Amino acid sequence: MSTITDVAKLARVSTSTVSNVLNGRVDKMSRETLGRVQQAVAELGFQPNRTARQLKTGQIEMLGLLVPSMGNPSYGLLAREIEIVARARHGYRVIVANTYRDPQQERAFLEDMWSQGVRGVIVISSLADEAHFEDPVSRGLVAVSYDSHARRDRQPILDYVSADNVAGASLAVQHLAEQGHRTIAFLTPSGWTFSRAEKREGFLQAAEKAGLKGVVISGSTASNYADEEMAELGQSLATPLVQHADRPTAAVAINDMMAIGLMAGLREQGLELPRDMSVVGMDGIPLGAYTAPPLTTIRLPLPDLARTMVDRIMLRLKEPSTAPDEFRFSSTLLQRQSVAPPPLR
Amino acid sequence: MSTITDVAKLARVSTSTVSNVLNGRVDKMSRETLGRVQQAVAELGFQPNRTARQLKTGQIEMLGLLVPSMGNPSYGLLAREIEIVARARHGYRVIVANTYRDPQQERAFLEDMWSQGVRGVIVISSLADEAHFEDPVSRGLVAVSYDSHARRDRQPILDYVSADNVAGASLAVQHLAEQGHRTIAFLTPSGWTFSRAEKREGFLQAAEKAGLKGVVISGSTASNYADEEMAELGQSLATPLVQHADRPTAAVAINDMMAIGLMAGLREQGLELPRDMSVVGMDGIPLGAYTAPPLTTIRLPLPDLARTMVDRIMLRLKEPSTAPDEFRFSSTLLQRQSVAPPPLR
Repeated sequence: MSTITDVAKLARVSTSTVSNVLNGRVDKMSRETLGRVQQAVAELGFQPNRTARQLKTGQIEMLGLLVPSMGNPSYGLLAREIEIVARARHGYRVIVANTYRDPQQERAFLEDMWSQGVRGVIVISSLADEAHFEDPVSRGLVAVSYDSHARRDRQPILDYVSADNVAGASLAVQHLAEQGHRTIAFLTPSGWTFSRAEKREGFLQAAEKAGLKGVVISGSTASNYADEEMAELGQSLATPLVQHADRPTAAVAINDMMAIGLMAGLREQGLELPRDMSVVGMDGIPLGAYTAPPLTTIRLPLPDLARTMVDRIMLRLKEPSTAPDEFRFSSTLLQRQSVAPPPLR
Repeated sequence: MSTITDVAKLARVSTSTVSNVLNGRVDKMSRETLGRVQQAVAELGFQPNRTARQLKTGQIEMLGLLVPSMGNPSYGLLAREIEIVARARHGYRVIVANTYRDPQQERAFLEDMWSQGVRGVIVISSLADEAHFEDPVSRGLVAVSYDSHARRDRQPILDYVSADNVAGASLAVQHLAEQGHRTIAFLTPSGWTFSRAEKREGFLQAAEKAGLKGVVISGSTASNYADEEMAELGQSLATPLVQHADRPTAAVAINDMMAIGLMAGLREQGLELPRDMSVVGMDGIPLGAYTAPPLTTIRLPLPDLARTMVDRIMLRLKEPSTAPDEFRFSSTLLQRQSVAPPPLR
């Protein structure tokens, strides 16, 4: 493993001189010195380390990607899309970290990325409080936040890319209304995020508009942000759903993992699905095709989301005067087999 | 965003001088020059870029992690464990890439990592042919390969960390034998990997030892390595399984995702599970607790695997004379509800 120091020693020059050769700063260098350095590079099979260029520009051809957890299929799929887009369209690599939505972890990651020369970060994890972005952004970090929005009381310092969650939840409600349901439930974990609040709002608005009764059933798990325990939470909400005084005949779950857990809990209670309860998920993870029954869901436009997030970072890194902006994409209804007309009473 | 060039300009010195200050090479520097540089650093709020240190040592505090696909829950979970161990135990970050087991992608990643100053790589993707490791390793790259083994005809140049797949498959077979099954099937994709070959071998040996008839049912998908399409493949193998001349009453699937797809296919065929067919998966992904029925599986010792892979890289980076080695860990039977005695004939 040859380093610049090895080359310098062999060529009997300073590391600064080697650095100058690597970076093409040779106009003031003697031909003899240049030759010695080039010879040493060749002899050692020295691979020009990109960090030389990084040192000059302060930048590195890598993006940072923050996810709550790589173990969650929803985030795994989005992370994969992002990695592929960054690499295929821009030749960038991706540094991924799990944060479990812990602000300390998020902050540490941003600082780490900055000091490594990483100037662009995608955050699939943003908490209500984005204060920890302000310092790095003021120093020049470019960040894109997924499934979040600009705060009304201040100039946005991040790009915001999201799916239209209000419209997505509305699609789910409309589908259930068309099937004849009159009372439907919205199932959610109790930790607040923009995304959850929008889905809930979309659900309630659409229910009212369609003349349905919409109820909300929430629960919590060990962690407020429940990323790993979505399926477990879904399973635990089967009982309150089945025992709910208003007797909903359908449930919209905040995401597919929760829907999958819910269906397991409903089956345990002896329900036939979808006959006794219709279930709609949100996300569109491929696994939903293999559940019992296959899960009807609101599918996210993952390729659009990923491409936009990466392209925005690249654009703003290249043209720093570009103002941050918001981008919203529509989801689509993916009908599988978990929705049926309500049971006759 | 201040760079070394900005500091140099403000202090009216060369970037090499700034670099010297950052790296403590100041013994030959005038006090006045040193003071100007320090002043400029302070005024600009310049953050010492780790790449300065990387330039000297050639190393970067990051590991590379190659996975076939971040969208596959099995790999997502292992990637998460690895990221957590690297960060918590060693303060290292992880650069992740999807390769779909494409040798070109693997090679490009290794080269990229090297030129970025990354000296340790974990590969959860190794193909039968490991020729593309030889160059980087000879230059000093340290690599650990997951679920693979040293080739018999040569000195190992990688660490190999794996689960004992032969014993794992054997556990599955013994469990089925205890339940009274006499004819059982092993379901696998047709692309060869060490892991698949071992599971198959373990299955057939254990079946013979227990006096059972073991049959192998394989199929292929668009890609030889079928990582994303495991569930789809499993679903497609339901028919050959049900129609098999030897009428197996149980199936061991190469991994949980395949088992989940298989169960969906069996349900579609009208089978009651586990009454009409017992199914055992391998991996232990948490999702298996929510399937219909909850999936009995052979659980991988993920924390042990992840910790060993990361610790070995760190050790060999620190002490390059350490010879590569092999490490094998035992899996355990996780009984859920997808296994029952065979149906009476």
